[in-house]
Amino acid sequence: MFKVDINCDLGESFGRYALGEQEEILQYITSANIACGFHAGDPTVMRKTVELAIAHNVQIGAHPGLPDLNGFGRREMNITPQEAYDMVVYQIGALQGFLATKGVQMQHVKPHGALYNMASVNRPLADAIAQAVKDVSPQLILFGLASSELTAAGEAIGLQTVHEVFADRTYQADGTLTSRKQSNALITDETVAIAQVVQMVKEKHVTSVQGTQVALKAESICIHGDGEHAVAFASRTRAALEEAGITVTAFH
Amino acid sequence: MFKVDINCDLGESFGRYALGEQEEILQYITSANIACGFHAGDPTVMRKTVELAIAHNVQIGAHPGLPDLNGFGRREMNITPQEAYDMVVYQIGALQGFLATKGVQMQHVKPHGALYNMASVNRPLADAIAQAVKDVSPQLILFGLASSELTAAGEAIGLQTVHEVFADRTYQADGTLTSRKQSNALITDETVAIAQVVQMVKEKHVTSVQGTQVALKAESICIHGDGEHAVAFASRTRAALEEAGITVTAFH
Amino acid sequence: MFKVDINCDLGESFGRYALGEQEEILQYITSANIACGFHAGDPTVMRKTVELAIAHNVQIGAHPGLPDLNGFGRREMNITPQEAYDMVVYQIGALQGFLATKGVQMQHVKPHGALYNMASVNRPLADAIAQAVKDVSPQLILFGLASSELTAAGEAIGLQTVHEVFADRTYQADGTLTSRKQSNALITDETVAIAQVVQMVKEKHVTSVQGTQVALKAESICIHGDGEHAVAFASRTRAALEEAGITVTAFH
Amino acid sequence: MFKVDINCDLGESFGRYALGEQEEILQYITSANIACGFHAGDPTVMRKTVELAIAHNVQIGAHPGLPDLNGFGRREMNITPQEAYDMVVYQIGALQGFLATKGVQMQHVKPHGALYNMASVNRPLADAIAQAVKDVSPQLILFGLASSELTAAGEAIGLQTVHEVFADRTYQADGTLTSRKQSNALITDETVAIAQVVQMVKEKHVTSVQGTQVALKAESICIHGDGEHAVAFASRTRAALEEAGITVTAFH
Repeated sequence: MFKVDINCDLGESFGRYALGEQEEILQYITSANIACGFHAGDPTVMRKTVELAIAHNVQIGAHPGLPDLNGFGRREMNITPQEAYDMVVYQIGALQGFLATKGVQMQHVKPHGALYNMASVNRPLADAIAQAVKDVSPQLILFGLASSELTAAGEAIGLQTVHEVFADRTYQADGTLTSRKQSNALITDETVAIAQVVQMVKEKHVTSVQGTQVALKAESICIHGDGEHAVAFASRTRAALEEAGITVTAFH
Repeated sequence: MFKVDINCDLGESFGRYALGEQEEILQYITSANIACGFHAGDPTVMRKTVELAIAHNVQIGAHPGLPDLNGFGRREMNITPQEAYDMVVYQIGALQGFLATKGVQMQHVKPHGALYNMASVNRPLADAIAQAVKDVSPQLILFGLASSELTAAGEAIGLQTVHEVFADRTYQADGTLTSRKQSNALITDETVAIAQVVQMVKEKHVTSVQGTQVALKAESICIHGDGEHAVAFASRTRAALEEAGITVTAFH
Repeated sequence: MFKVDINCDLGESFGRYALGEQEEILQYITSANIACGFHAGDPTVMRKTVELAIAHNVQIGAHPGLPDLNGFGRREMNITPQEAYDMVVYQIGALQGFLATKGVQMQHVKPHGALYNMASVNRPLADAIAQAVKDVSPQLILFGLASSELTAAGEAIGLQTVHEVFADRTYQADGTLTSRKQSNALITDETVAIAQVVQMVKEKHVTSVQGTQVALKAESICIHGDGEHAVAFASRTRAALEEAGITVTAFH
Repeated sequence: MFKVDINCDLGESFGRYALGEQEEILQYITSANIACGFHAGDPTVMRKTVELAIAHNVQIGAHPGLPDLNGFGRREMNITPQEAYDMVVYQIGALQGFLATKGVQMQHVKPHGALYNMASVNRPLADAIAQAVKDVSPQLILFGLASSELTAAGEAIGLQTVHEVFADRTYQADGTLTSRKQSNALITDETVAIAQVVQMVKEKHVTSVQGTQVALKAESICIHGDGEHAVAFASRTRAALEEAGITVTAFH
């Protein structure tokens, strides 16, 4: 009996700037990571995205990022663990404000972009983020890159932790994602991407770009909500998972 | 039997920029309004200020402002009621994040600067702010200018509402504060300021600059935490209130 | 012998956020107003937009706005004339940095959004903006709403001043634009819009929504660079002007 | 015949936040590095600081930093050389706007904080910054850490380049500054600091914390403008230099 969650980053518009997210994506995902105003999102976008997620019965998580709107939170910044702790608490709280107005519980927290990447390999930073999540609420689930320092940090303090895999990204032999600076970072063939996902969920390993088998847990699959083919890909991915006998479900 | 609360804006530093707030002020106040990162404050300042308030047994409130750090939230912006609602929910939530890490309940919400002033006279804006507070938690108390549209908005939807007066500001015949652009906006003689406070609490009216008596409730007194004489003035004010038989206490 | 300039706001993307401006629009316009990082734009967007304008032989102007990225500079802020002066000097300078790297002279300055609207009716603010433009360089041309306080302020200090009209906006009997909050603010029928433009250039008046004839100079026509039909409309407008015997040309 | 410049970072206040810079410092320095709004400073602060520098006959330079007001530009960010180029052009231009209003030429450019530190050791970043300075104006002088990649980058493209030393910082055997994270980063004994400065100017080397002699050029000395003893230290430093027969003068 296999099961997996599908998560997607949402609420990444800002003021007059729309990111081209499509509401239809919400039909296929089970968890939404909502930007909290640091790397993307603003209060109005957050409220509307929360409303959309609730309307589609999708579980909601905070998606805290670095304070770098111009760089969309993708440029590493040399912050201290204490600064990471503080900015994660702030952003979780801000999103919880909107959930409180709807009487809805937050399911999870997933760091964004460079904060996510740094926490995948930097244990003190990962520890600070995990502690922030736990201190705000021990009921929150921490999402992190499968087999990373971030999932290890969450597990070490007793947080429910979800190992996340990527449908359209390739993996290195050490289990990290291939850097977006590399030409082979993205899997552009949807059929290959979907096969990789099913393999990861059912066989608990992935084939790295070096050709080795890397063991990992695939508890949630990250897909993208923008881009021309996002909805079609989400639909295909979900259908393929279900055809493979995998139940697609969130954690709450 | 008279009683009154003393509140003070805190947590208004930002990064390397300190505002010269003095920790000693916390000995004399009963409620702290903590900036939430829009007009002032940042996640690290918020955490530290929450810790200080808790250490001094001072009740904590959110102090949401306009998104204008450069203008310290003091420049009116033509925002819609919906935008006001969204930015208030966001900022209350962000501060609640820090309170959650300490297991402490938020007592109140008090808008800052131009947002406070606009809400004092603009009922749709006041309604939006009051609704935001109530939607996040009906247990929160709304602080507003005594006899203003903001207190009226809070009362209209059944929120516990606190009428606030200012120790060092003069009042117009219509009950509004004299604009800071006027030369007589501030009471610079501490003895006069303190006498005004005691009068407002015990007699429920204030003498306007036009010489008329204006009825108002004085449930909380706002004092300043920065400036050379802030601590001494806070100390004198509290002593004068207690000598006049007034109990100084918060609401929780 | 009639002539007119066509101007368009450009460079309004920000980081990962694109506004959907289309490069083809540059074939039809003669002056580009480039955002300077306060209400929109960032250094990288500014450089790229300057390069595009130069490649299309389009004259370049600064498009300074209020410091409100989230509101796209469209929310009025209660700034002082001195603050307006300072933020206009800053933004003109920032864009001039990029022009200097290309050895190109700036043609003009046109305030954006709420700053433009406030300066149209608030003379002290208009005076401050005009003075800022002149102080940076008396060779710069000030673009403002036709017959507004802004054009009057420019003329009063001897700046070359360009009266601007809008192709797709309706006018009030007092010569101001109908507020975007009104349902009849926009002219959605392209044929009507183009006829209005030709009328304004050749007959020096416009028919207000109240039905009166309002005298104005139409030295530059503002068109939009984003939106589905922007390029087609720009092409039609320019063709209609030229068919009507009007030379379309910038000022430098 | 020895000579040296004394430079100081100025204009680092922001809105209501003052950094405690003291105007008296301008009596002792010859070059001012003025913050440009990214890590510190705002348009109004920039204008006022330019006015102060002119009034004291101090040469003016741009002090561009990373877009991180909360971190005061001191947290390294993983920006590309192209992003560095763009943000340096933007900030130089913004300050030049204010100089243009005064009819004053800019003397130099000195990167701030983490941008300065990264450019000291990262040649592609240093090249991008040097090219930005040259492209805006080949008359500008580039200030960089003595014997760093930044000075090398400036020299490689033919910019006039100034090697800067620090009065109150210790040096490593490789010529870099001791990290502020080390306890021995700062020289707290003013007499020692001043002796080091005189040694660097006259003997063209400094004694590293490892005890070795490191060759360097000391063409400008960086001192601090804030802090309790800043003015007294500036005065003592200048007096000591002059007593040692060193002429204190800027480059323009």
